[in-house]
Amino acid sequence: MKIKYNLKKNEKNTMARLGSIETNYGEYETPMFMPVGTRATVKGLSPNEIDDVKSGIILANTYHLWLRPGEDLISEAGGLHKFMNVNHPILTDSGGFQVFSLARPKDISEEGVKFKSHIDGTKLFLTPEKSIQIQNKLDSDIAMSFDECIPYPASYEYVKNSVDRTIRWAKRGKDVFNNPRQSLFGIVQGGEFEDLRKYSAEELQKIGFDGYSIGGTSVGENKETMYKMVEYSTKYLPSDKVRYLMGVGDPIDIIEGVIRGVDIFDCVLPTRIARHGNAFTKYGKINLKNAKFKRDFTPLENECDCYACKNFTKAYIRHLVTLDEMLGARLLSIHNLRFLIRLTEDLRETIKNDNILEYKDEFIKNYYGDKDYLSKETKGQGD
Amino acid sequence: MKIKYNLKKNEKNTMARLGSIETNYGEYETPMFMPVGTRATVKGLSPNEIDDVKSGIILANTYHLWLRPGEDLISEAGGLHKFMNVNHPILTDSGGFQVFSLARPKDISEEGVKFKSHIDGTKLFLTPEKSIQIQNKLDSDIAMSFDECIPYPASYEYVKNSVDRTIRWAKRGKDVFNNPRQSLFGIVQGGEFEDLRKYSAEELQKIGFDGYSIGGTSVGENKETMYKMVEYSTKYLPSDKVRYLMGVGDPIDIIEGVIRGVDIFDCVLPTRIARHGNAFTKYGKINLKNAKFKRDFTPLENECDCYACKNFTKAYIRHLVTLDEMLGARLLSIHNLRFLIRLTEDLRETIKNDNILEYKDEFIKNYYGDKDYLSKETKGQGD
Repeated sequence: MKIKYNLKKNEKNTMARLGSIETNYGEYETPMFMPVGTRATVKGLSPNEIDDVKSGIILANTYHLWLRPGEDLISEAGGLHKFMNVNHPILTDSGGFQVFSLARPKDISEEGVKFKSHIDGTKLFLTPEKSIQIQNKLDSDIAMSFDECIPYPASYEYVKNSVDRTIRWAKRGKDVFNNPRQSLFGIVQGGEFEDLRKYSAEELQKIGFDGYSIGGTSVGENKETMYKMVEYSTKYLPSDKVRYLMGVGDPIDIIEGVIRGVDIFDCVLPTRIARHGNAFTKYGKINLKNAKFKRDFTPLENECDCYACKNFTKAYIRHLVTLDEMLGARLLSIHNLRFLIRLTEDLRETIKNDNILEYKDEFIKNYYGDKDYLSKETKGQGD
Repeated sequence: MKIKYNLKKNEKNTMARLGSIETNYGEYETPMFMPVGTRATVKGLSPNEIDDVKSGIILANTYHLWLRPGEDLISEAGGLHKFMNVNHPILTDSGGFQVFSLARPKDISEEGVKFKSHIDGTKLFLTPEKSIQIQNKLDSDIAMSFDECIPYPASYEYVKNSVDRTIRWAKRGKDVFNNPRQSLFGIVQGGEFEDLRKYSAEELQKIGFDGYSIGGTSVGENKETMYKMVEYSTKYLPSDKVRYLMGVGDPIDIIEGVIRGVDIFDCVLPTRIARHGNAFTKYGKINLKNAKFKRDFTPLENECDCYACKNFTKAYIRHLVTLDEMLGARLLSIHNLRFLIRLTEDLRETIKNDNILEYKDEFIKNYYGDKDYLSKETKGQGD
């Protein structure tokens, strides 16, 4: 089935909205954070742990799966769900972000992107059609249109040309799209220019998609600019379709995104920082390698209901992390994913109660203290 | 409480015996295989997965925990069970094996062993008393006496002197032992010499221990010699105390050990080979990196009830293993531990049915085919 977005309530003071998405694998409330399973595995978690952290949709990366093990093998296995044994809806990206960031192509033409595999240098060619065909075979629940990911900053003219191409690519992708149980999203681009974001959003709606993504917002600009880019996009998107802010997972960015009307988020941040010994907490990120946790026999967060917090102390997790024991990265990955998912659960409550701005102020006070979070760079959330 | 061994039945045709051990954490049937949690974590498994594979006693390494995080920290945490959050009985080794194999000491005297830490070269001194004091603090359920691990082969005189010293060390350890909820085992040494194994076993019984370990059997001799060493030990051990063959986990060695009257085993083999992509199967070890598994959409073993076999295909595990994804090593670790634990469950049945020798013949036929398994070296099972 095509996904269906149900708008349940608008928050009184902001663009934040409570809703739900009906999918092939059940109905899930939004706002929602999606764990990332880059190469058909959410790093550090087993499928039953993906359930345990109360995941909704999860994400997988078309570029990585195209290269290894290949979409044909996954198709033979019965599709991505059966291959990795998950009963959650799966969203695949288009491969575009990885091609532009990992393979750094020199040859971008109207037809597509020629580049070398980041693994072995093999020459590859990814086109809007090919991206969709791969995703059709992977048999995810939601596919993304292939878009051009441009550098930041870029001139108005450069961005305008790129937006036009991305719209043409979206149309070409839709034309070859051929999987009745899969939905297809268009991706709003346009850099920091409101008229280009508006133009992109409107042109994509003319083509018509099952949902809309917002791209190009976490590429090195400061948070204030990023939030503007999001707002310039959501403003021009229809209220009856889901809105997905791609590659964003810093807690405050999720809050600011929700305030601007975003429904779903994904990011590798929670599992990546976990593998470096970091945990999200209400009072900011902590690194468990820090000696001050050596004899800290309390959980990462007292109020957290995750497996790590209910069963282990910081001292034990620190022991595991300093010795590079697998269980350390696992426990931190579980906690960090649950932290972001709990955050979206909280945000859903604030929408019901029309108090998301108060929640945000309180969150910032606890998480950042006096620090100026708006000046922070947004780069490096993507993967 | 001190552990209590209950002998339930002797197999008719061999020395194999069915029994149970009553511990601080419940009663468990023997023969039993113990997963190894070297540094207070069974590599690749969380505590709930330790339950899932139906573990009984698990093992932790005194040497590693002494160095990091230190026995005082673990004691402050409330002991090893609370630190690592397991509800299984825990057996700690003496640290001897690691000192002799990892730190390669040059200064072994009557008093103890002087050596350098394998981590940072710090000068350390481990004595029989110190080993027991560390284990008392770790608060495991079963502690081991500190023994000398000698090279193989060694002369009769060398072994005799070492056995005498190990007996004196066992006595010194028992004298300082001070933990009422912990049991203490003596370790039978004596190389390949039956009279020395007999002498060692008898002298240790005069001192009196809660159970008896068999050491020095997996150090490079061939399997036939190893099995003799085991038999030369169990023959002279009392029937009302549990017998533990240290560091042995090759499936056929477990079968041959049980046939010779061994009750419990431990080995890092199942988790270590898992991290290199290997799985135990009824038809021998397989390496998932092998290209022939690329499109094998069947489980590791059809008849296995573990989480890996019930949920994933060889093709998926191969995908994970070739990309070095954490979940690959986890799934193989779970399977390999469950494989050995299932083996001991089978062996308990064969003791009830008095057909362990038939089971062994069938196992060898499947597992080795025509290969001559008796000539294989036993080295490298320890850790």
